[in-house]
Amino acid sequence: MKPQRDLSHLNFILFGGDYNPEQWPESIWPEDAQLMQEAGVNMVSLAIFSWAKLEPREGEFDFGWLDRIMNLLHAHGIKVDLATATAAPPPWMAKNYPDSLPMTKDGVTLYPGARQQYCPHSVAYKTLAARLVAKVAERYAQHPALAMWHINNEYGCHVSESFTPAGTNAFRAWLQAKYETMDRLNHAWGTAFWSQQYGDWSEIHPPRSAPTFVNPTQQLDWKRFSSDAILALMKMEVEILRRITPSVPVVTNFMGFFKPLDYWAWAQEEDLVSDDNYPDPLDPQAHIGSAMRYDLMRSLRYGQPWLLMEQTPAAVNWRNRNAMKKPDQMRLWSYQALARGANGVMFFQWRAAKAGAEKFHGAMVPHAGKDTRVFREIAQLGSELKRLDPLVRTTNHADVAIVFDWDNWWALELDSHPSIDMSARNLMPYYAALYQHGVTCDFVPSTVSADKLREYKLVVVPNLYLTKDGVGPVFEQYVAAGGHMVIGAFSGISNADDHIWLGGYPAPFRALLGIRIEEFEALGAGQKQQLITDDEESFACDTWRDAIQLEGARVLARMGEEEHAEAPAITQNTFGKGSAVYVGTCPDTQALTWLLARMCAEAGVVAPLAAPPGVEVTVRSGDGRRFVFVLNQTAQNVEVKLAEPMRDALTGLEHAGVVTLAGYGVAVLM
Amino acid sequence: MKPQRDLSHLNFILFGGDYNPEQWPESIWPEDAQLMQEAGVNMVSLAIFSWAKLEPREGEFDFGWLDRIMNLLHAHGIKVDLATATAAPPPWMAKNYPDSLPMTKDGVTLYPGARQQYCPHSVAYKTLAARLVAKVAERYAQHPALAMWHINNEYGCHVSESFTPAGTNAFRAWLQAKYETMDRLNHAWGTAFWSQQYGDWSEIHPPRSAPTFVNPTQQLDWKRFSSDAILALMKMEVEILRRITPSVPVVTNFMGFFKPLDYWAWAQEEDLVSDDNYPDPLDPQAHIGSAMRYDLMRSLRYGQPWLLMEQTPAAVNWRNRNAMKKPDQMRLWSYQALARGANGVMFFQWRAAKAGAEKFHGAMVPHAGKDTRVFREIAQLGSELKRLDPLVRTTNHADVAIVFDWDNWWALELDSHPSIDMSARNLMPYYAALYQHGVTCDFVPSTVSADKLREYKLVVVPNLYLTKDGVGPVFEQYVAAGGHMVIGAFSGISNADDHIWLGGYPAPFRALLGIRIEEFEALGAGQKQQLITDDEESFACDTWRDAIQLEGARVLARMGEEEHAEAPAITQNTFGKGSAVYVGTCPDTQALTWLLARMCAEAGVVAPLAAPPGVEVTVRSGDGRRFVFVLNQTAQNVEVKLAEPMRDALTGLEHAGVVTLAGYGVAVLM
Amino acid sequence: MKPQRDLSHLNFILFGGDYNPEQWPESIWPEDAQLMQEAGVNMVSLAIFSWAKLEPREGEFDFGWLDRIMNLLHAHGIKVDLATATAAPPPWMAKNYPDSLPMTKDGVTLYPGARQQYCPHSVAYKTLAARLVAKVAERYAQHPALAMWHINNEYGCHVSESFTPAGTNAFRAWLQAKYETMDRLNHAWGTAFWSQQYGDWSEIHPPRSAPTFVNPTQQLDWKRFSSDAILALMKMEVEILRRITPSVPVVTNFMGFFKPLDYWAWAQEEDLVSDDNYPDPLDPQAHIGSAMRYDLMRSLRYGQPWLLMEQTPAAVNWRNRNAMKKPDQMRLWSYQALARGANGVMFFQWRAAKAGAEKFHGAMVPHAGKDTRVFREIAQLGSELKRLDPLVRTTNHADVAIVFDWDNWWALELDSHPSIDMSARNLMPYYAALYQHGVTCDFVPSTVSADKLREYKLVVVPNLYLTKDGVGPVFEQYVAAGGHMVIGAFSGISNADDHIWLGGYPAPFRALLGIRIEEFEALGAGQKQQLITDDEESFACDTWRDAIQLEGARVLARMGEEEHAEAPAITQNTFGKGSAVYVGTCPDTQALTWLLARMCAEAGVVAPLAAPPGVEVTVRSGDGRRFVFVLNQTAQNVEVKLAEPMRDALTGLEHAGVVTLAGYGVAVLM
Repeated sequence: MKPQRDLSHLNFILFGGDYNPEQWPESIWPEDAQLMQEAGVNMVSLAIFSWAKLEPREGEFDFGWLDRIMNLLHAHGIKVDLATATAAPPPWMAKNYPDSLPMTKDGVTLYPGARQQYCPHSVAYKTLAARLVAKVAERYAQHPALAMWHINNEYGCHVSESFTPAGTNAFRAWLQAKYETMDRLNHAWGTAFWSQQYGDWSEIHPPRSAPTFVNPTQQLDWKRFSSDAILALMKMEVEILRRITPSVPVVTNFMGFFKPLDYWAWAQEEDLVSDDNYPDPLDPQAHIGSAMRYDLMRSLRYGQPWLLMEQTPAAVNWRNRNAMKKPDQMRLWSYQALARGANGVMFFQWRAAKAGAEKFHGAMVPHAGKDTRVFREIAQLGSELKRLDPLVRTTNHADVAIVFDWDNWWALELDSHPSIDMSARNLMPYYAALYQHGVTCDFVPSTVSADKLREYKLVVVPNLYLTKDGVGPVFEQYVAAGGHMVIGAFSGISNADDHIWLGGYPAPFRALLGIRIEEFEALGAGQKQQLITDDEESFACDTWRDAIQLEGARVLARMGEEEHAEAPAITQNTFGKGSAVYVGTCPDTQALTWLLARMCAEAGVVAPLAAPPGVEVTVRSGDGRRFVFVLNQTAQNVEVKLAEPMRDALTGLEHAGVVTLAGYGVAVLM
Repeated sequence: MKPQRDLSHLNFILFGGDYNPEQWPESIWPEDAQLMQEAGVNMVSLAIFSWAKLEPREGEFDFGWLDRIMNLLHAHGIKVDLATATAAPPPWMAKNYPDSLPMTKDGVTLYPGARQQYCPHSVAYKTLAARLVAKVAERYAQHPALAMWHINNEYGCHVSESFTPAGTNAFRAWLQAKYETMDRLNHAWGTAFWSQQYGDWSEIHPPRSAPTFVNPTQQLDWKRFSSDAILALMKMEVEILRRITPSVPVVTNFMGFFKPLDYWAWAQEEDLVSDDNYPDPLDPQAHIGSAMRYDLMRSLRYGQPWLLMEQTPAAVNWRNRNAMKKPDQMRLWSYQALARGANGVMFFQWRAAKAGAEKFHGAMVPHAGKDTRVFREIAQLGSELKRLDPLVRTTNHADVAIVFDWDNWWALELDSHPSIDMSARNLMPYYAALYQHGVTCDFVPSTVSADKLREYKLVVVPNLYLTKDGVGPVFEQYVAAGGHMVIGAFSGISNADDHIWLGGYPAPFRALLGIRIEEFEALGAGQKQQLITDDEESFACDTWRDAIQLEGARVLARMGEEEHAEAPAITQNTFGKGSAVYVGTCPDTQALTWLLARMCAEAGVVAPLAAPPGVEVTVRSGDGRRFVFVLNQTAQNVEVKLAEPMRDALTGLEHAGVVTLAGYGVAVLM
Repeated sequence: MKPQRDLSHLNFILFGGDYNPEQWPESIWPEDAQLMQEAGVNMVSLAIFSWAKLEPREGEFDFGWLDRIMNLLHAHGIKVDLATATAAPPPWMAKNYPDSLPMTKDGVTLYPGARQQYCPHSVAYKTLAARLVAKVAERYAQHPALAMWHINNEYGCHVSESFTPAGTNAFRAWLQAKYETMDRLNHAWGTAFWSQQYGDWSEIHPPRSAPTFVNPTQQLDWKRFSSDAILALMKMEVEILRRITPSVPVVTNFMGFFKPLDYWAWAQEEDLVSDDNYPDPLDPQAHIGSAMRYDLMRSLRYGQPWLLMEQTPAAVNWRNRNAMKKPDQMRLWSYQALARGANGVMFFQWRAAKAGAEKFHGAMVPHAGKDTRVFREIAQLGSELKRLDPLVRTTNHADVAIVFDWDNWWALELDSHPSIDMSARNLMPYYAALYQHGVTCDFVPSTVSADKLREYKLVVVPNLYLTKDGVGPVFEQYVAAGGHMVIGAFSGISNADDHIWLGGYPAPFRALLGIRIEEFEALGAGQKQQLITDDEESFACDTWRDAIQLEGARVLARMGEEEHAEAPAITQNTFGKGSAVYVGTCPDTQALTWLLARMCAEAGVVAPLAAPPGVEVTVRSGDGRRFVFVLNQTAQNVEVKLAEPMRDALTGLEHAGVVTLAGYGVAVLM
């Protein structure tokens, strides 16, 4: 991991949001600044979609308005996360450089009128973006309001791949750099199959629309290439910014579990991870999803602080049906980010737009103005957060690691597989089971070192279809030394080129798991089967069934259907000083809760507090302090028992044996 | 409204259909003419798809066959609604002018082989169509059979927008004419958002496929432009026809609530509104839908008579599953058109085709010939209608107006809104509730004058998301003077440019309604909530919920769910001498029936007759006469009580205190 | 039917599979050959996707590896079904000849990366394929392992039509050859409708994306043309092969009921029919579907033996969810092919691939190697089949014929019809009803001769929407002479040009059936109606209802719904010495089982054995032998009573009055 820039000037909890003054007459700006102070705002993200305003015609720049707003914000004590403004090119770019527009796999050009209408491989885009970044950086390098750089915006959000001729050429060059010879590519892609052998780099295409399934390794390399190519755009900006403002941290905003971009690689190129999170209030599991992505965000730079860069104060506008956060839910969910390592809570956006495609997106200042429930909740939160500044020097510590990486995600969800239900969504039940137990998790990539693994008491691998060379031995080392590991179905199947590991599945983990699998099969859509544990509890599973042969492992649960004749479904193998569990089906959350309770007990993993259902508890510590977050994710009042008397950092109140929380209530205990 | 041509020659109920003699050998024509007489046919629509027959090669015209059929029809006393034949260009047009083909937003060209394969912006199409119209008009200007002109056919039915380069250029020109300066366009479109600011007209595109939501005002202007551009095609034909045959009325056939074309504007350019209506017999609400569209058709030229230009005698063939009209249902539904102001009942088509894409479409003469149930019902209807000629000088008079216009429809259903369920379909429950009460409605556009509004006792505004400048004051004037108004949810939100009216929703109607709304939210798909009225009745609502603050209004109904704490759902405000109701959710038809019963009572709106459920009653009057239509929309016998003895215009029978109707039966009482 | 090549060298049951040695290092080949011997493999299909390996650069050929593997196989006594390798062009073809790529109706080009990426109309493809075929044929003409030629692979599987300019031109030429004059085409296509009259061949297009329904006859001719054009590719290869190796039989692999290709025409051009069949183990009716397609395969060359060319030993990988065949099910389903006339049972593929889009497809040698359930079952089957070689000189004899052809399938499923549910899927309930009765069927095309028909006691016509000239008289002749016939709804509607047969449906069969239909109608989606038989049994029907007038027929079943007033639903007419039944709705399988039981009884059709439900029994006989196949398609044990003692050809055991079969068990009795 590249070293992080000094962040010591960010020694407070960031609070604010995206600010788009260019959408409003300047006469409103002073009111904005004054309202921000009222709301406790200490930072705004500025100029994210301002390219057309900054460069209204190619090569003609206008920074006057931005100077004025920067000065105004500074005068009000508000720091700026200043954007490089490269996320949405002005319409003139498409006119002057028609080839800069992106193209779908069907050959359909995507036109201006929305945003992000650039092909990531376009030379015109790169040249023009680089010039803009340099202009912005040079102009504001010394501005006292500048606190960090906001690079582009949600890279890849709408256009994460582009099939233009430029894209085709870039793909060929990337392949040539990777494989060097045609033979190596032909071997890696398995082109002996279906008469696909290439004689020359120029014969290769991206996975365009084709008669049927495109070569899987070609598809996989295309995903790797596309993530790399977009990352190269960010690196281009980072280099410029670091040259001109070496000490200003750079950040781009992530989108949680966003499939197209390998955030493990991305996070290494910036100084601070940030996330845009829009949980759906209609989803009763939304808060568990948020917890999971926050744990990922914290893990991407191995426990360093991160930012919640965007959330909505109210509803969003891009779902089919957009529900409001209920009263207090915005506050609760803001604390949830802090509870899992965030050092800031920011919003999209400051003031609700009058026009455009996001005018119905919630904002800190709604259409109805400041005399609103939403603004009052914002101001309350802003005022509370000032009491938590010491948090910034703490972080979360986890005893459990979950293995997750993008290469596997991409490979797992390729077509022509045994079941389309065997996808990354199977991660969620594992996480939810650990969440029920009150256990905070870190994420690690599958190529994690043995040293890093040893920091954890339990390692959970919900799926590792694509298992690279060397991963098996590291996992064995970890378990042999006393670690505990749980591996989910359809793991250890193929290598980095997506070639099957032959000789009985899961070949790289057979010794570790003490099993051999000859066959697996998909269950029908919605088809449930019965799972019976060794203590005769009965659960349901679906999606998948392995035919497991025991080679030393013992059975933790077996299939309940008569036709499967009590075949093993979940097994455990003692390996060295530790043990490894294999889950040869997709158990439901209840079954996984049973399994992971047992594994946590074996591994000595304990929750920080015995909280009632629906109450989320995490701990941040460091710098001699310890904060316990208690978050009531239910609409009802709850009582949480404390092992010792604690003080609430928000209210200053002392709690003796118990703390009582209203529905959606929060306590931060010290 | 432009003045109507003299229609005094159409002083009888029109009865007939589309006639396509070119599909048959001439030897069959005499049989056709004779069967038409047998069926009581007095008018046919001719030559609608005859361009290729009239101009088999570019510039070579052949009118001989049309001369012969015109003469034959005249000799049999049958009038002709003669088409300009421009609806489907011959295949040679695509060959000679490939750019004349339409193009989708994905850039896909639509090819010949079906019909309507022309881009509305194609110069070639316009030039060739204009020449054809002139040729036809000149040739038949003096023909005694000619009764009116049938312009094109179902404009926009399959191709209502086209993204060719010609379309792009035309759009830019239309925008330039509308906005004059780039600044005005940039302001109207809100291009400060997402870096969309334009520097030159040539940078603008239609809303092609794009990375994400296209600018809403750009989309809205594109819809306005597309309706205008197709209307320009009709106006081009009208000008030619009026030049050559100044006294012959012109008509084009509409398709009811057809979203792409703003029929308020269209109706002003023709002499007579006509409608093609194909209710689905499998839809138990089909007759309510027909009533609603017939009320719209009558309203488009403010109560002037209109024609039912097309319906099927039996089944259609273009749905996935095409049910037959039941015995007597064709007759019943024909009278329904007359009952709501039509002066004619016509069919597609005369004789069922042997070949082509409509060979399974019902016809007056089916494949099985004249010895069929269908032909017998046609002949019976033709014979009956002769008794109703005095109807042509009467019309319907309504006490209730429904506000409806296309600009709002287009804007309401744009993407990036709070809920995709908040659409024009929410009109139906309001109409259905009034229909249950036996109340006939007019439609008016939202830009209706205060004078016009004062003609109504009650004005219902199911939705007016897009509320133009000046509408609020007119509504206030109407209510202040004693009118009653009901306004549905998500009204008064944006102005003509689709910019939000700030300051609490619905800003233009806040004073009128005595409320303020800070927030609204979408309910989940299929999610029902409870509505409790002030007389403690309980109903269901869905889709939407406003958080209403009372500023003078009283509560007619409140939300029943505990979490909403009895929040107001329907409110009423006394304003001047009248009152205004706001409906802050989407109540089901039962709830709206409850509400509109109360509002009709308050406004003094009464049904013409107290009819049992499923019996539709309307009144046409004028020229000293009054006809009461009693339509039994059920399959069962019904008895309808009369206030006074009346005579049945069809049977001549006198009815004392009651009239009995068989299932699907009809009475026209005087 | 063209004469069949001599097949006397294939005097044993073929057993083997697709073999792709080019995917593996040569060091593995000897193990392959040895394992094949172990498994009883006597034939493999070779080089199906080897074009890129055989011609790595245009015009440079490399046969060395193929020589070696041919020799190796020969040395192990394994015959070769050698492919012409034209199914998947190498990537260089798309580079050197970009126009050779196929194009969709939307104009989207399909790129390399998968397989079959050639436009069937491409001159480049044809030229290059022809050269390759000649090279392969010349090189291996005398090779002792060569047993037959495998032409291309699953023609049309992914690309069955292509809308390139070359395709457009070829279509025009095909039309010109068919119609000779524009007038004839205009008449056949009914172009008087919708102004579609053509003045020149160059005005005609394939049915590209269009504004609405494309002319039905144009669509139908396009399907005929596309089948012909792809067949021309096969004929091109056949001609080359017959020139070079006149005595080697040629075969291409079919895909059962594959809509794009008219296999009646195709089967005449090859020496042996073969089928690739992949029943879905999750479908409880899968075995009935297999029986039906096997009966079709046997019928395509009028009872001559055929091959099961491909099936999977385990699961496939191209469905969304791919279930495994249960233990013994692969064996059972292999015998099912033999039971219905196959002389061979082969698999895709020999050894499971490590890479590529089919790596999860089941194989005879799985990823886990030979110590697997799958390989053991393969080897058991291979060993058993050696005992059945005398089968090759027998075939099945059927008393029942089902009329089925592609022209009707294409026409029936065109758009703009009364109901999308009226499709070829309605064949299945008729077949299933006969299957329940243990009756084996032949298939015949609708243009079957009267002589051929007379071989059958009962002829079933599930649907014959498109009824060509002359078919009515042949059917009348058959019934008049004492035959029995059942005709399903929506038959006798249109002629070969898809023009309606006028005068009351079904005009060509009205005299035969003694009925007249004025109207038909679609029922709603999922709408069931009641059917009451003349013996007062009650069944369900759906999809369709004819309004039948009796003109001599009697009623076998009537509609049960009150609104239909007991209208006739199924009728029977005595015609000469026989009788003809009309089914004016879509009865469910129970109702058809009732009907066909009665018709079998009347016609004297009896099952070979009275077997319990779920047990399939067929008979193959010839050359003085008779084999009775008894297949237990259930998971439970069953007892089957025998009329006489019989010997099991597999076990050699004698069975007296009864044979007992385990779940999925098989007996072949003599």
